[in-house]
Amino acid sequence: MSDEYDVIVIGAGPAGENVADRAVRGGLSAVIVEERLAGGECSYWACIPSKALLRPVELAAEVSRVPGLETTPIDTRAVLARRDEAVSGYDDAGQVRWVESVPAAFVRGRGRLDGPRRVVVDLPGGGERVLTARHAVVLATGSVASVPPVPGLREAKPWTSHEVTAAASVPGRLAVIGGGVVGCEMAQAMHGLGARRTTMLVRGGGLLDRMEPFAGELLAESFKESGIDVRLRTGVERVERPEPGGEVTLHLSQGPPVVADEVLVATGRKPAVRGLGLETVGLPQDRPVEVDDSLRATGVADGWLYAVGDVNGRNLLTHMGKYQGRACGDVIAARAAGARDDLPAMRASADGAGPPQVVFTDPQICSVGRTEAAAREAGFRVRAVEYDLASVSGAYLLGDGYRGRAKAVVDEDRGVLLGVTFAGPGTAELLHSATVAVIGEVPLERLWHAVPSFPTVSEVWLRLLETYGL
Amino acid sequence: MSDEYDVIVIGAGPAGENVADRAVRGGLSAVIVEERLAGGECSYWACIPSKALLRPVELAAEVSRVPGLETTPIDTRAVLARRDEAVSGYDDAGQVRWVESVPAAFVRGRGRLDGPRRVVVDLPGGGERVLTARHAVVLATGSVASVPPVPGLREAKPWTSHEVTAAASVPGRLAVIGGGVVGCEMAQAMHGLGARRTTMLVRGGGLLDRMEPFAGELLAESFKESGIDVRLRTGVERVERPEPGGEVTLHLSQGPPVVADEVLVATGRKPAVRGLGLETVGLPQDRPVEVDDSLRATGVADGWLYAVGDVNGRNLLTHMGKYQGRACGDVIAARAAGARDDLPAMRASADGAGPPQVVFTDPQICSVGRTEAAAREAGFRVRAVEYDLASVSGAYLLGDGYRGRAKAVVDEDRGVLLGVTFAGPGTAELLHSATVAVIGEVPLERLWHAVPSFPTVSEVWLRLLETYGL
Repeated sequence: MSDEYDVIVIGAGPAGENVADRAVRGGLSAVIVEERLAGGECSYWACIPSKALLRPVELAAEVSRVPGLETTPIDTRAVLARRDEAVSGYDDAGQVRWVESVPAAFVRGRGRLDGPRRVVVDLPGGGERVLTARHAVVLATGSVASVPPVPGLREAKPWTSHEVTAAASVPGRLAVIGGGVVGCEMAQAMHGLGARRTTMLVRGGGLLDRMEPFAGELLAESFKESGIDVRLRTGVERVERPEPGGEVTLHLSQGPPVVADEVLVATGRKPAVRGLGLETVGLPQDRPVEVDDSLRATGVADGWLYAVGDVNGRNLLTHMGKYQGRACGDVIAARAAGARDDLPAMRASADGAGPPQVVFTDPQICSVGRTEAAAREAGFRVRAVEYDLASVSGAYLLGDGYRGRAKAVVDEDRGVLLGVTFAGPGTAELLHSATVAVIGEVPLERLWHAVPSFPTVSEVWLRLLETYGL
Repeated sequence: MSDEYDVIVIGAGPAGENVADRAVRGGLSAVIVEERLAGGECSYWACIPSKALLRPVELAAEVSRVPGLETTPIDTRAVLARRDEAVSGYDDAGQVRWVESVPAAFVRGRGRLDGPRRVVVDLPGGGERVLTARHAVVLATGSVASVPPVPGLREAKPWTSHEVTAAASVPGRLAVIGGGVVGCEMAQAMHGLGARRTTMLVRGGGLLDRMEPFAGELLAESFKESGIDVRLRTGVERVERPEPGGEVTLHLSQGPPVVADEVLVATGRKPAVRGLGLETVGLPQDRPVEVDDSLRATGVADGWLYAVGDVNGRNLLTHMGKYQGRACGDVIAARAAGARDDLPAMRASADGAGPPQVVFTDPQICSVGRTEAAAREAGFRVRAVEYDLASVSGAYLLGDGYRGRAKAVVDEDRGVLLGVTFAGPGTAELLHSATVAVIGEVPLERLWHAVPSFPTVSEVWLRLLETYGL
């Protein structure tokens, strides 16, 4: 087996897999190096298991709003079993087969750069293997959970997204540090699956603080009603866990300490660049790998290095990593062939517009593009309109006491949307209409003719446009 | 109270209400005449009650696919009570208040044309009232269910959409004649709410035969599995109901007769033009009122007559009627003011593209634009792509055994979508993304950058575009 390939991809998560797939389709040979499981974080310890855990919780909430239908208590064991099935029992044989079917070579081990176009793989059984790339090396190593430097926290061996999504049972008392997507989703999952006491400790003034403020407010309201204890403006100052696996005590910046059986740290992620050998190619070792819109690392001579997905720090979302992966695979193949390398599909041009994102909580929180605040900060001449989703017939029909809200941010100079946020049950699939409108830059005047079906939640589009004045 | 108004609207359904609302906003005075309930068919005997009946059935089906969650049997009485609430107990006081708040006058009675700009209202207590219009009369009388001329059928006093959506109890045995939207939705609703035996008698070769064939096939499969007896290519030749309200026997073109407790006729609708006085203004009495894109009736001197919603036969869907109503109210106000009357919002220009439609069954069936067959027939150079929704991670996560399919019809000359169909659970809100793409004529090359969030059902967009070759 040759150790020279056209393209070497380090990291077999969705982003890396897409690079290999597109590069091979473009006529190149490729190898993917993966230290852990092919399929990556998303498939085993993030999107997939978290949604498998959340689905019955969300559905039970939906049922609770519909008179005449009731659920029996959730059978947590069955839910965990479905989670196990969804992650293929943490076995990546199927994914490896997929990689080989591309066809791309698969090498298990820890890959690191060792100078231009050269990758050394530390093999799991010991020893090394050296790979060289004729055209490109692509970093797709993803990100790792950050653990903040709170005294005692690291020693307490907290859960991160890894452990919570892989939980073999639900802790009786769970403390969650952080109010972002992972914190919110996992607090609700564990609470809905039987945690007796779930406490969220959030340093800032609200949940999901990168989104429109009403989104986090609606979610906090829902959490409180379901019995999740949300403590805002509350820092964790010190953590004690005298016995490994035993009770954890969290001392806070205000209020009495929280005692829990497990603590989940969900305070953000950082690019997985440690030990990646960035210094061997003249790049800083502790920062995201900066890339241009073709995903090529900036500041590397001859332009042979690329980075896709979380490791480049552009948008830490699976679908955006995959999107970058497709553009990257295409552009590498084009450059290798000496063909045009500037076609629209070869640029991750949507990266800067504000990625679409769905938080799979009850209510679902969905956004794409810029918030009003971000749009103003970026200098756009903005008008924003909001509408109460509960006033939409299609929402009322989903259940009693439906609560939700929608907001559209309009670029007044161009008459197009800069961003849209939906918060409410039944909006996860609605988001893509906003993504098409924002990224497609469909003029509001034309959107007016895109009539939403009655009676769906989508009819909020009509209401937003009417509120705007159409 | 003056009996002269700028605009007279006959029919207080959603389409007529929208006309009045927009005309008044444009500075005109308006009166709405309604024989039955303000709010129209949709609010009391169609969209709203049917979805109230279907919601628990759909949700129970969703739960049945999620391990670890179970529902208790549906409490039909509670569902019927929520339906009653959704239709405001068949009381239109709230809707009348809304009309008056526009403000528009409301006259209860049966309105009919009596020559140019003149409407005679037959009042419920007897007597007449004559209204005259300074600018426009708008027909918004909707449609009525057709009952085919099957011997004995009319005498058997069959249910139509009216009676089934207003049912006070669920019949033990229900025969449904017709395999269109109403037939499919109501067969599933009644079956899910406890009908012991539900039989669909469909003359054609499939359900929902105006949509892509796979949609009806998936639905028929689902119906069969749930125990609904779907008999295709089966005509009803004779109906017997010896005792009013007693057993009904349907003799068929093939197979043994079906005996039922109620029979629902769902074989289409015809415009409600009977007794509307069309002959007094020189129009045929038995056909939809033909209009141009500004909703103005063709062939009427001075152009004072308009028709919106089902009565014009363009698209028999509430949301399209409302859409026409908005354009119509705006254009009447513009013409009355002598202002520009050709702005884009003053034309129902999306009417011809193929309206969006959601069938709220399990699986949901959603489509917008043209089917492949319709697009080819219209002379487009077409390529169609399909994708199995079950292969989308977001669909798998909704439940075990997810089944669904998507199809996109591409105009090869312009690189835009002509039509999209989704069949599968969780697609009702996804449809609007297709409506925006089709009506917004977003080029496929740009749609590629509208990245669907992972893991949603929306990711089928990526798969469709990949299948197309992007």
